[in-house]
Amino acid sequence: MWRELAPLGRHPGSGGYRRYAWTGADRECRAWFQEQAEARGLTLDTDRNGNQWAWYGDPLAPDAVVTGSHLDSVPDGGAFDGPLGVVSAFAAFDELRSRGAEFTRPFAITNFGDEEGARFGLACVGSRLASGQLTADRARLLRDQDGVPLHRAMEAAGHDPDAIGADPERLGRIGAFVELHVEQGRALDIGGHPVGVASAIWPHGRWRFDFRGEANHAGTTRLADRRDPMLTYAETVLAARREAELVGGLATFGKVAVEPNGVNAIPSLVRAWLDSRAADQSTLDALVGAVEQAAREYADKAGTGLDVVRESFTPVVEFRHALRDEIRRLLGGEAPGGPGPGGGTPGGPGPGVPVLGTGAGHDAGILSASVPTAMLFVRNPTGVSHSPAEHATEDDCVAGVLALADVLEGLACS
Amino acid sequence: MWRELAPLGRHPGSGGYRRYAWTGADRECRAWFQEQAEARGLTLDTDRNGNQWAWYGDPLAPDAVVTGSHLDSVPDGGAFDGPLGVVSAFAAFDELRSRGAEFTRPFAITNFGDEEGARFGLACVGSRLASGQLTADRARLLRDQDGVPLHRAMEAAGHDPDAIGADPERLGRIGAFVELHVEQGRALDIGGHPVGVASAIWPHGRWRFDFRGEANHAGTTRLADRRDPMLTYAETVLAARREAELVGGLATFGKVAVEPNGVNAIPSLVRAWLDSRAADQSTLDALVGAVEQAAREYADKAGTGLDVVRESFTPVVEFRHALRDEIRRLLGGEAPGGPGPGGGTPGGPGPGVPVLGTGAGHDAGILSASVPTAMLFVRNPTGVSHSPAEHATEDDCVAGVLALADVLEGLACS
Repeated sequence: MWRELAPLGRHPGSGGYRRYAWTGADRECRAWFQEQAEARGLTLDTDRNGNQWAWYGDPLAPDAVVTGSHLDSVPDGGAFDGPLGVVSAFAAFDELRSRGAEFTRPFAITNFGDEEGARFGLACVGSRLASGQLTADRARLLRDQDGVPLHRAMEAAGHDPDAIGADPERLGRIGAFVELHVEQGRALDIGGHPVGVASAIWPHGRWRFDFRGEANHAGTTRLADRRDPMLTYAETVLAARREAELVGGLATFGKVAVEPNGVNAIPSLVRAWLDSRAADQSTLDALVGAVEQAAREYADKAGTGLDVVRESFTPVVEFRHALRDEIRRLLGGEAPGGPGPGGGTPGGPGPGVPVLGTGAGHDAGILSASVPTAMLFVRNPTGVSHSPAEHATEDDCVAGVLALADVLEGLACS
Repeated sequence: MWRELAPLGRHPGSGGYRRYAWTGADRECRAWFQEQAEARGLTLDTDRNGNQWAWYGDPLAPDAVVTGSHLDSVPDGGAFDGPLGVVSAFAAFDELRSRGAEFTRPFAITNFGDEEGARFGLACVGSRLASGQLTADRARLLRDQDGVPLHRAMEAAGHDPDAIGADPERLGRIGAFVELHVEQGRALDIGGHPVGVASAIWPHGRWRFDFRGEANHAGTTRLADRRDPMLTYAETVLAARREAELVGGLATFGKVAVEPNGVNAIPSLVRAWLDSRAADQSTLDALVGAVEQAAREYADKAGTGLDVVRESFTPVVEFRHALRDEIRRLLGGEAPGGPGPGGGTPGGPGPGVPVLGTGAGHDAGILSASVPTAMLFVRNPTGVSHSPAEHATEDDCVAGVLALADVLEGLACS
């Protein structure tokens, strides 16, 4: 199963995955999902927002147990972020069938569309649309970098663009959603646990900083006559790191676009995106506010302009405590948890399942506003994620599948 | 004449010019050149390296007087850098005809190909090939960002790719080359002169800095676990400015490419280009050495990697003193000159023509190794260049045409 999925959308140069929403690589991943569903006699069902569902039992009955993740990737992403949750879902279903488990609730495996937001700039589009957190009208404004609107890309991939929008009936029939995901930090590795349960997703957002200066010839313009936005940007990158260290949060400039981007031209514009996260809302507000204030002070000194726009934001997500506790009970014990992304201290090795927070957004976080939701994490020995170096050992992947099977059996089988 | 050229290759969004070598916009500019030549009964001749020549008199006779510049542009460049020298050449020819001047030497107007190097990364390709400073074999290695080789782009534009290479016979028949150019600094404006004569072109070069780190998830990777090359790049940008100020040179990072360039991904690579210039070779060596050393120290501290490659270099160019003095005599006097780009002090206003240095490379600088060469500069009130804001007043453009006509009359007419 894993072997068939591995080559799809893999870039031969980087070794990383470029599975962007509604592209050819995405279509191949969706075909793979359909084959897996059909091979198990599951009923394939693509919802109005392009999310795929593979049903066992009646899709229209209430109180379904659903598990799954996503198959799309960031630019040059790794093999596990997303696909591990989908592959593990099918494998856990196989495990339950081999155990002879009888399903007493409807069951489905999902592949949510466009979780990473690599193409249209907004993460979790499939689950945001379904839950109504993104309206169809606003979704129609999303464009990729070639100017192609999201709904035209969906149409070109054979999806009805007029169908998109909130889907409360569908979500209302879900009694529990469990997403398994590779950990994107080292908390489980530090604690010596193969599998953990999520407590909360840190609040996080994306801010676009437009540093504006004056384009000019790099070979003839006196330093004193320059208004060079690259200098203001550089000061701001360093300020973001300092401020994040101060409050124990995260602040990253990972994407930059320069105009005119000529070797011998002082830029007219440096556009850069800040990704920032922290354990709670007030810390995050203080962190981003401090970065913006530092940027404004540097801009004033350099005579450059600055516009800051918040492009997306997700408040803190506390997963449903009752479901989380039920899962920990099903997995045979509790280990002490920690609060941070990679910085958590989920206790020493031993029996029980640690609870940990995460800085990453997930479809499970979006759905938790409408549906009882939980997440399982599988150990990532290096903590590396969103990179071809992302990894989980085969033993830990098997442990993840068995834990997911135990949870699903406890929730969905008599 | 200016009106017909103005719309070619102009980007409707930025208002700047995108006239890159061997593109559609370049072809339109070349067709304009041909029309101007034909309208004046000049003989059009495209040389083996794609440079255009419009001849009055015998192209094969010795001791020709040649003037001209280039029509291509940097990304979102201004209207004057290059075209002013070509338009002024045609206008000066018209002026000489209306004066009834009799040419006693062969005369030509030129449009050198690919001066800015915006597409293939190397400046002055047309004049470098003609003078042998770029060999045909090395030119065949040049590629644009889509991987298209230079010679294939020339072939697609109807040029024989096997013809390129040094052209010593052609250059040997030139007795004097004069290039008129808009000033790319404010020395003439500060001194109150509409027109100046070049003394020298500062040595300059381009260095590519590859800052290598580890791609990772921006939302889950602890600050302490990161190897983020964006931080090293930011430190280096600030170091370049500091070191340039220290030695009175120029150092600019104006072009950046980030991988994977995702909002929520710590970069694996920040590739940035340093453009640096100084009044003499040893100062430039010291400046670039200091920037590289600072970058290495920051990289070591951050655990990131660094590779630095010199991509191009042009030594100091002293224009021919005899020709320069002859031009100053023809223009009716001498005013004191200054050494620097924009930082020169070409004396107070009054009669006479100041002499000034420049940080910018030009075809005239390349040709000066093979041919007696001089340059005229036209005042640029803002000093802005390589930008749509680049400007020269109509009065100053006329002054430039008349000065060029005086020089050509003195050199080429009895």
